[in-house]
Formats: sequence, structure tokens, C-alpha cells
Amino acid sequence: MMNMEKKDRERESETSEQVVNPYKVSGKDGKEIDYDKLIDKFGCQRLDESLIDRVQRLTSRQPHEFLRRGVFFAHRDFNEILDAYERGDKFYLYTGRGPSSEALHLGHLIPFLFTKYLQEAFKVPLVIQLTDDEKFMWRKDLTVEECKRLARENAKDIIACGFDVTKTFIFSDFGYNEPAFRENVAEISKRVTLNQVIGIFGFSGEDNIGKIAFPPVQAAPSFPSSFPHLFPGMDNLRCLIPCAIDQGSSGKMSASDPNSAIYLTDTAKDIKKKINSALSGGHQFLKEQKKHGANLEEDVPFKYLSFFLNDDSELEHIRKEYGEPGGGMQSGYVKNRLAEVLTEIVERHRTARAAVTEEMVDAFMGVRPLPSMFE
Amino acid sequence: MMNMEKKDRERESETSEQVVNPYKVSGKDGKEIDYDKLIDKFGCQRLDESLIDRVQRLTSRQPHEFLRRGVFFAHRDFNEILDAYERGDKFYLYTGRGPSSEALHLGHLIPFLFTKYLQEAFKVPLVIQLTDDEKFMWRKDLTVEECKRLARENAKDIIACGFDVTKTFIFSDFGYNEPAFRENVAEISKRVTLNQVIGIFGFSGEDNIGKIAFPPVQAAPSFPSSFPHLFPGMDNLRCLIPCAIDQGSSGKMSASDPNSAIYLTDTAKDIKKKINSALSGGHQFLKEQKKHGANLEEDVPFKYLSFFLNDDSELEHIRKEYGEPGGGMQSGYVKNRLAEVLTEIVERHRTARAAVTEEMVDAFMGVRPLPSMFE
Repeated sequence: MMNMEKKDRERESETSEQVVNPYKVSGKDGKEIDYDKLIDKFGCQRLDESLIDRVQRLTSRQPHEFLRRGVFFAHRDFNEILDAYERGDKFYLYTGRGPSSEALHLGHLIPFLFTKYLQEAFKVPLVIQLTDDEKFMWRKDLTVEECKRLARENAKDIIACGFDVTKTFIFSDFGYNEPAFRENVAEISKRVTLNQVIGIFGFSGEDNIGKIAFPPVQAAPSFPSSFPHLFPGMDNLRCLIPCAIDQGSSGKMSASDPNSAIYLTDTAKDIKKKINSALSGGHQFLKEQKKHGANLEEDVPFKYLSFFLNDDSELEHIRKEYGEPGGGMQSGYVKNRLAEVLTEIVERHRTARAAVTEEMVDAFMGVRPLPSMFE
Repeated sequence: MMNMEKKDRERESETSEQVVNPYKVSGKDGKEIDYDKLIDKFGCQRLDESLIDRVQRLTSRQPHEFLRRGVFFAHRDFNEILDAYERGDKFYLYTGRGPSSEALHLGHLIPFLFTKYLQEAFKVPLVIQLTDDEKFMWRKDLTVEECKRLARENAKDIIACGFDVTKTFIFSDFGYNEPAFRENVAEISKRVTLNQVIGIFGFSGEDNIGKIAFPPVQAAPSFPSSFPHLFPGMDNLRCLIPCAIDQGSSGKMSASDPNSAIYLTDTAKDIKKKINSALSGGHQFLKEQKKHGANLEEDVPFKYLSFFLNDDSELEHIRKEYGEPGGGMQSGYVKNRLAEVLTEIVERHRTARAAVTEEMVDAFMGVRPLPSMFE
């Protein structure tokens, strides 16, 4: 029997290069990700000021802070979607999640919060794929039944973000047995070689063939014909895919401690404790702090505020008083303010999630037409 | 991007060895297949006299000529199925076909004729898989729609063999969207590595990933839980799989000419012409023929008679009069007799196929319980 051991060894020797694929995110020689290089390698473009202004003009509302503050920073062909939208064409949104665990953290919410903004701003339908089949392939310990259960539990967290049921279809791969979807998976699989997926995803000969077969399952929802009940005869409808490069690794307060992520099930006390352990860019003594200002590049709590504090003017105030020399704000204040902001978000989420019934899950996941989706 | 070119070259250098996989059948150094070696390599056993006697005893009927004459010559664990059957347990049969073309030849019928005998003799249910998805992956020129159409056309040929609709479920992979089936495909895919499928099937890096993903789709029907409508809660039901090693290459009258196969659409004239062009083991002049007898090992028409002539005593008569010294039978007689036998089979098939309606196809392919399947 032939095997790919040599190939595996060759791959190992390359890991000092920057690697970004769905299963691994690491910078060159263990350093930070070089986003400019990443944008270039993936054939993307910066989401620049002029594009954000165009979004504001077309949607008649202030762009989401994730756009204004560069949290979502790159795109492919977003301008073409906007051209079409300006001509009166609609599009649909597609995002998803691999349901690997019951406990979501704040980082997991970011793509969904941004997607919700896009759905509301552009008034477009949304499909959300829960890749329970992918998690089954990657996690030896998980059964099909457990993956399906996790998909349904994660659907509740997603619904709790406040998506519009009349414009949103949530499906799990094990649960969505539409022939047209499977046929699109086959169409894509026929056009992708083993060499290509090895090059893109870094598979080895010891990987199971379920992993090898998965990428087309994730690609198929970007074709409207995968959803004949939603987009009958609309085979040319465009699809916009909001996604993160590193859902798995973001959201932690301490880079070295995976438990330092703020989970959506954390109490106010948990949150306070985790924030207090976070790396600060501030100075211990007021005199030093006033003289230099905090190093905001290194300040994890400030980074989190820039993600989750809605109020632009308050964020600017903190940036100035904490980050610039002469200001009197100290890290304790910043951490307390962040604890308030995150506790509010987490408690709001928890209340919303508790109100999500099984019937609501059935409603979102039901294979049905969405009559008002383009209104 | 990495690729597997080296691996491909290594594989090329091995082709002088005997190769038997679903996509290639060739003997060592271009010679005939060494069946003993094959049986050994596949972990099979000879289907010997004592096992055939046991089949006769258990089914209270003469075993099919394909068994008696060694057309089906090897098995894995058939004795265990018979042990269970003797204890009063039932089993089910599973066979299939890759619907690559509309025109079936006689060789394609062999597994189905044998399966029909097994179904009738053991009174057991049968599932028949049409791998339209496999053919889509292997044939660049075929669309999904064309593969689905060919599957349905091939189903008509299969139905024309006379299967019992109350005990037979025919399905195509694109058409059968049962979640339990897909979940079994996932269960198998998780347990098979890329190295394993490369070792077994000889895939290369330039093959599309649909081919890599396919083997579990063919394995899944051997688990009864893939058919919850047929075998509810019968997860331990055994499965017997009649199959040929070389459906593709058998059935030809001339080894060098693929068009020399007897197609089920051939006229009596076509059949006669093809048989006349076949390699004979007989001698041109009666004197020589009488002196030596024909070389039956090389005689293609006699080989065909041994497959398709039901009457044991007539076959024995021909074997003796034609194959042994002293007999007066010449190859012209053998060829004529074969033409009669095959024309009758082909015409019977054509009449039966013409009577297969779309409603009958729907009935065989409908996802429904089979109430009388174990009676």
C-alpha cells in the first residue's frame, strides 16, 4: 500500500511559513498574522474608506462599527455586489458555523452580529449552514447524534442574535437532504482535484476521506440553486459571504489560555476575573501612565472595547484619555468599563437564548419558502 | 502547491503486476487474471462443491448453473450467512450497477440473473444501487441530469430480468435522499484514510475528490440501517453481495474489439455476425477436428454456451462431441447453437423491457416498506 508519509514530512518543514486555513491559523515563525500578506495571497482587497462610504450611501444608515473600525477588513468582489444592488438586484447572505461545542464565546458571535447588520441594512435573505458533518469528521469523540444535537443547540445561540425568521433559513448538513444541494456538492467535487485540496487545506494521507470530501459541502451554499425552495429559478442570484479568518483563536483574554475566552454562559464574576487577567498596555503608576499613555496595540481590554463598545464618542474619549500622554485614565477604569459592556452583552444574549423555543428552532430550520425575503 | 506526481509515476511502474479494482482489471504482464492469486489477495475462499451442495439442501432446488459451473467462484463468509439462514435468520441481497450507458451487454446481465436466482431461492429482499453519482465523477462528458436519466433507463433493464417488486428496492444515489443512508456514508468515511483508498483503488493526485469520496457510498448499502423503511430496527441483519470482478471487460466476443460484445439491443443478425468473428478452439477440417477435439479453453463460443445454455445434458453433449477426440461436432454447429441461445435471451429481454412502464420504475424505486419481503 502506498502512503503519503514523505508528503507529510515535506509539509511539516513548511510550518514556519504563515498558515491560514480553516483548521490552522499561525503567523510566520510563530509571529502575528501578516494581514497584508494574507489579503494578497487570498486575492482579496482592503475594505477601504470609499467602499464603506458607499455602503452608507446605499443603505442610508451608519455602517456597522465592525466596518468603521476595521474588524472586517478585506473583501472579494464586494464592489460588484454593490454595483448589482445599486441597479436594483438583490443578493443573499451565507454564513455558517461548525457546531463543535455547546459553549460559544464572544468571538463566535462576531460574524453573526455583522451578518445581522448586513441582513437588516440591505434587506436580504440569509442562509446559515451548520456543518455538523464536518465536525463529525474532525472530532473522533463525536457521534453523528451528538453533532446533530450540537447543531441544534448552536442554532439557538444564532437565533438569539435576533435574526428575522421571515428572511433566514438555518440548516445543518446532516439535516438538509435537498437533492439539488447534493447535486451541487457533486458538481463542485468533480471540478476539484485531490492535489488542489491538499494544497489549500494541508490534508495528509492519514486524514480520513470525509475531510477530503468536505470542502465542496461548504462551497455549495454559495450557489442559489442549492436552495430551490428559497430561490426558485434565480440561479444567477449573487451571494455575499461574511466570514472570519480565525473564529477559533479569537475571543481569548489571554493568548496562552484557551479558557480565558469570554463564554456566552459566563457570569459577571467570571467575566471580571478573566478581564483582570488580560494583558494591559497601561502603566502601573499614574505618573508613568500620564507621561507615556498606554500602549493600545498591546492592550487586550482596549482591543475588546474597540470591538464591543457601540458608542464611537466614548471609545474615542477612552482612546485619548487612556492611550495618549497627558490623560489621567488608568487600566482599572478601562477593565471595569469593558466588564460592564461584556456583561451586558452576555446577559442580553443569555436572556434571548432562554426565550428560544424548540418551535422557533423548527421554524428557522424548516425547509420552506421565505415569502417576504426580498421585501 | 503540493502534488502527487511522484506517486503517480511510482504507480505506473507497478502496472505489470495483476491489477483488479473497480476501474481496472488486468493480469500480470498483460496475461490472463490469476484467479487463485486474486482469491487469496481479497481474503476470499473458493465456492466449493460442499458449499454448493449446502445451498441445494437449504433452498430445496438445484443451484443455479452459474454456481454449478463455477461462473461465481469465490466468496467471503457465505458459510456464515448460511449458518444464520439455517437457524431461521433471514438476510438481504445487495447488488448494483454504474449506469454509464444505455446499451447493456450480456455480461452486465450475469450478476442480475444470479441475484434473481438467489432472491427466489432464499426468498429474501434485495436492494439495487444505481451509482449515478459515481458515473458523474468518472465521466467528464456526463451531466447530473444525464446520469440520472441513464440510471432510470438501466433500472428498466434490471426490472426486465423479472425481479419481484414486493421484495426489491431499486435506488439511485442522486435520487435516494434518506438521512440514515447519508449518515452511514459519513460513518464509513470517518473510518477510511486517504492512504487506504489510494492503496485499494489506485487514485492519483489529479483525480477529482468526488472519486475519493465515493467508495463509502458503495459500502453504505451493506448496512441495513441505510434503509430504515425496509429494515426498521433490524440493524444486525446480514447482507449478501453478489458481484462480478470484471463486469466491464466480460461479455465481448473478441478481446480486442469492445464493439464485439453482444448488446441487449442487438438483432439476430448482429448476434450471428459477432459470434462468427469469435475465436474458436475448433479445427477447420473435420479430420483434424475428429483427431484432436476442439481446444475448449480457447473457444469463446463454447465459453458462452457454458454461461448461457441452461440444459446441463446438452452442454455435456457438446463438450464431449466437440471438445473430445472422436466427436464429429464442428465449430459451425456450436456457433449456430450459441446464436440461437443468445438470440432467444436477447429477444426475451427486449420484449420484457418494452413492457416496463414508467409506473413500474416508480414502483420499484419508491421509498416504501416492502411488506412481504420476508415471507
